[in-house]
Parts: sequence; structure tokens; C-alpha cells
Amino acid sequence: MSAERILEGLARRDPVALARAITLVENQRDGFERVLSHAHGQLGRAGARRVGITGPPGAGKSTLTDALIQRFRSRRLSVGVVAVDPTSPFTGGALLGDRIRMESVSVDPDVFIRSMATRGAQGGLATTTEEVADLLEAFGFDRVLIESVGVGQTELDIARAAETTVLVLVPESGDGIQALKAGVMEVADIYVVNKSDRPGADKLRQEIEVMLGLRRGNAFRHVRPHHGPGLSDRPTVPPSDSWEPPVLGTVASTGAGVDELLAALDRHTVYLQASGQLAARRRQRLAARTRAVLERGVRRWLHEGMRVDELVARRLDEVTDGRKSPYDVAGEILDQMKAGTAGEENR
Amino acid sequence: MSAERILEGLARRDPVALARAITLVENQRDGFERVLSHAHGQLGRAGARRVGITGPPGAGKSTLTDALIQRFRSRRLSVGVVAVDPTSPFTGGALLGDRIRMESVSVDPDVFIRSMATRGAQGGLATTTEEVADLLEAFGFDRVLIESVGVGQTELDIARAAETTVLVLVPESGDGIQALKAGVMEVADIYVVNKSDRPGADKLRQEIEVMLGLRRGNAFRHVRPHHGPGLSDRPTVPPSDSWEPPVLGTVASTGAGVDELLAALDRHTVYLQASGQLAARRRQRLAARTRAVLERGVRRWLHEGMRVDELVARRLDEVTDGRKSPYDVAGEILDQMKAGTAGEENR
Repeated sequence: MSAERILEGLARRDPVALARAITLVENQRDGFERVLSHAHGQLGRAGARRVGITGPPGAGKSTLTDALIQRFRSRRLSVGVVAVDPTSPFTGGALLGDRIRMESVSVDPDVFIRSMATRGAQGGLATTTEEVADLLEAFGFDRVLIESVGVGQTELDIARAAETTVLVLVPESGDGIQALKAGVMEVADIYVVNKSDRPGADKLRQEIEVMLGLRRGNAFRHVRPHHGPGLSDRPTVPPSDSWEPPVLGTVASTGAGVDELLAALDRHTVYLQASGQLAARRRQRLAARTRAVLERGVRRWLHEGMRVDELVARRLDEVTDGRKSPYDVAGEILDQMKAGTAGEENR
Repeated sequence: MSAERILEGLARRDPVALARAITLVENQRDGFERVLSHAHGQLGRAGARRVGITGPPGAGKSTLTDALIQRFRSRRLSVGVVAVDPTSPFTGGALLGDRIRMESVSVDPDVFIRSMATRGAQGGLATTTEEVADLLEAFGFDRVLIESVGVGQTELDIARAAETTVLVLVPESGDGIQALKAGVMEVADIYVVNKSDRPGADKLRQEIEVMLGLRRGNAFRHVRPHHGPGLSDRPTVPPSDSWEPPVLGTVASTGAGVDELLAALDRHTVYLQASGQLAARRRQRLAARTRAVLERGVRRWLHEGMRVDELVARRLDEVTDGRKSPYDVAGEILDQMKAGTAGEENR
């Protein structure tokens, strides 16, 4: 399907066109930026919101996402989900599970779940995920959920493409402390201890709260000294221009605690709006996106326009036998690019 | 210290110059590629080898690395270690531990341990780690160990910069199966179940072996049909031109099993040489490095020569208020670059 026909299909809200648009964007085929540029004009609709959900494998993110979908649907909100597993570069392990999930909800036209292939470059995965989320939002979904497996930098970059980031942990995985160590605690807006009916759940929640308390102490001492000591009393209702990440317990499989999670999501939206963070974050994201799109465009130019793989392959013997270093060869090609002559050699 | 003085210091094997060279490369300061280009001429020394060690946090990689260092030292081999924790983007959590380790071995001038800051770009971290490993090898270390925390794509990219990749798992972490799921199994040359005196170690080893057996079955059926069914009998001594990843048990804290790991590392070197893989992998790595260095150079040109951040910032209002999309703006800047005019605007 051409970009033109995809745009026509999207205009009449054809879900087949949406699926094709996502594939186009995932594979960066001809016209994908035109489709995205068009989608961009339909973003920022009042009431549309993005939630990122991340956590280690086995934390129950899919079940929690399903529970959220049900709650959103009972509020008559449509939901688009993009699920990405960057820890699965080879096997695409998440796919089967999501296919099964998709079956179970696909009778509802107001729910759309898509698993992302992760064949793309590491650096590009967060951008591509955000672009797929754009397509879902532009298509008209009221809630876009971005589900990402793992607790590393990539997963965080992906989850942070949303306005609200939820980190899901489970007591028995031992990942609580691991995540604390990994500095992941510093980025989520809401913490969920899922499977909170299991042993160790209270302990994990306490550990997270202690960690957040320490961080808050630091934050207020260093960043917001004008608030003074009053906030160290930890009011149960924080002022709407500050945000204390809540630590919630859920049992996604029974639905326990999911309403509290929804309430926390709503409170976070209120906070983002009242504090001006919603506009500020959007502006930051647009700048970051523009830079990312430009860098990707340059890489494309490098590989398709300049045919860098050929240029490097042709000089590889010199590097292998030690006559030149990779830095010599890369520097020569770069100089040619700057002079606008590298492409000509290949013609 | 200037690149010139660092090169002088490296020439007389001054460890202070080595530390400065690593900092220069980590921060990509002026002259870093000149230092690397120079180091490149000193690589490929007979007998020098690189080993990548990866695994989830808490698997005991540091203790295992320390045990390997001791064994290498008793063979009178010098050892350089670069330790990187990509899961710790914010807190640099690995640093303290490694500082302590460094203290304990720093009396030995033939051991050098360096923790990498991970502030660099995600895509660039593997390249920078490989470059630090180059510096260590060029400095004259007989063994360069690349220790990477985690089991995601980035960690694998890092560990694969070595000739031999060791994946370390532990029974109680529950990460065995997680890693299996994540497709990590497909890349290691040697598997180590550390803390193998704990419950569940045998089960984990069996799981890994079953996984590898399945993979091997596939590999021989699809890739090497000429070997026929003979190999499915799993000879204890495989032919030197094929490699069956061993699954070893260690207790790094007591040293149990570490000699077997050393023997496996030696066997893998023999395999790499006999099969021609050593040269083939080296050639692939040099091509990949040249491309990576070029891409990094282009990004640098983008940010420093073209001052892309300014170009984007100047147009951000148009994007924020919806007059233009990030794709429009990125496309315009890219067109200017191709025409060689983007920089001029800023002068």
C-alpha cells in the first residue's frame, strides 16, 4: 500500500490503513515521514493521553495493561497499545503473547494492540516507538499505552516518550533492589508493585518508598529550598505543582488496585497541567524528536546517498593489514562528504 | 594533558597517561581519534586476547573477573579490565564497587581496572567501550576483560566486542529463563552458572543445555547438513572447526570451577584460530568500527559544525504551534546540509 493510499485510509479511520501505516514506519519505507508529518498535525487533541509502562520481564505488565484497557473501555475511552521488547533482539519473544492478547480484544474496534519488531537500530527504537504512538494518537485513540519490557536505558527512553511513566515491579523477582541500583527509580511518575498479594510485596513497597523519600529529601534540599522544611512532613495531598510519585500495590490478574492506578494517572495529568509541565515536556519532546529525525535522515543519506558500506568495504584491506586505521578511513570519507564529493566516486 | 603528551606517555608505558587517554576517549575530547588511530597500529599482537563477560546484576561477574585476574597473573599475563554498566544511566552505580576493587589490586602494575561512565549516547557506548579496550590492548596488556552488566541488546553489543563472550547467570536470580527468553543464549561462546553451590544450579545448567541442544539441532539441520547425524551424539571433544558452547559451573568466591573456565577460554581461542573465525571476526569488527566512527563523526559535524541544536531551537515555535512538523524542519535542515549551506546561516 502506497503512502498516498495509507493517508486516504487513515482519513476515513480504516484500521487496516493504520496497521499498514505502522508497518511503513517500522520499516522506514518510502513515504513514512510523509505519513508521520501528516499525523503530527493531528496530535495534541484535548483529552488524548499517553502512558508508558515499563518493568522487568514477568512483572505482569501485559496483564496490567489488559486491566487498564478494560477500565478505559468502561469509561468509553478508546485505547491503542504499542508493546515493545528491546531485550528480545533475536527471537522477538513478545510477539506470540501479544498476538494472543490481540485476539482476545480485537472484536472491539476501539482497542488496537501492536507489538513492535525490534530489528531497528538501538538508538532508533525509542524514536520509532514514539512515532507509532503518534500514529495511534492521530488515528483518534483517547489513550495510548506504550508498554516496554526491561529496566535499562533503552526501555526508559521508550517509556519516557509518554506523559506519564509507570514502573511495574514484582516482589519475587528480586528486581526491586536491582532496579533501585540501576537508577531506574529516578524516572517513573508512578510505581506499581504488582502481584502484591505475594510474600515480600510490603517489603518491596517500603524499599521503594525509602528510596523515593531519600530522593525527595535531596530534591527539596537542592532544587527547591524555598519550600522549606514543611514538605518533609510529607502531606498526604501534595500541592498540584509538585509531584510525589505514589507507590501502589496491584494484583493485575484480579483487578485489585487497578482503580487506584487509574486515579493516580488522573492526578498526574492534573499535576502536569497545573505545573505547566505538560507544555514544557511537549516542547522538549518536539525538539528532541526533530533532532532525532534529522540524525536518522543523515544516517540514511550516509548509507543510501553516500553508499558508505561500499566506501568502507573498498578500503577495508588497508585497515585490515594495518596501513590505515578506521579513524583514517572514516576521516577521509567525512572530509569527502563535507566537500560534497563522496557520492560522486560511486557514480 | 594534551593528546600529544598522552601519546608520549603511552610510548613510555606510563599508566597515568593510559588513564588520561581513557578519559580523553570517554569524553571524546580534542585529539581522541588521533590517540585511537595511533593505538590501532599496535593491536593484533600475537597472544593478546579479549574476553567479554556479561550477565544480570548480582550474578557475581566482578568476583569472577577478580578470580580470572588472579589466574592470569599466576600465568604471568598482564590484565586490563574495562567495566561498564549500561543499566545505570543516572547513578553510575557500578563505580563505587570497582573503585574498591581497584584499590585491592592496584599495587600490581600489571593489572589495570577501569569503570566506564555511561553518560555517552546509547548507540555509542559499545563503540566507546571497544575503543577503551583498544587502548588497553595497545598499552600491552595480554588479556583485556570487558565486563558489562545486563542482558539486553546494548550489553550484548558491548560483550561482543571481545573475541570470546562469557554469559554469567546465577540460580536464584530467576534470570536464567528470562535470559533464555530474551534470546541472549544465542550469542555467548561460554555459559557460566555462578554460585553453583546454591539450590537450582543444576536445574539452570540443564535448562541452558536443553536450550543450546535445541539450537544446535537447528544449526546442524539448517546450516551444516554435511556434518550429518554423527554430531548429534555430542562428542566430548568437538572438532576444532566447530564450537559447542560449554555450560560451566563456578563458585567465583571460592575459585571453584575457575580453572575449567580458563581451559574453556583457551579451547575457544584454538577454535577461533583453526576455523578462521579469528581473522573473519576481526575483519567484520574493523568494518563495523569504521562505519561507527564515521557515523559518530557525522553526528559531531551535525552538532558542532552545523550547530543543529541552534537550528532546531530557532524553528521550534513553528513546530510547537503546528505550522510545521518535526519532519518538515528536519528535512529542510538536511537539504541545506546536502547543499552545503546549513552551516553558513549560523556564521
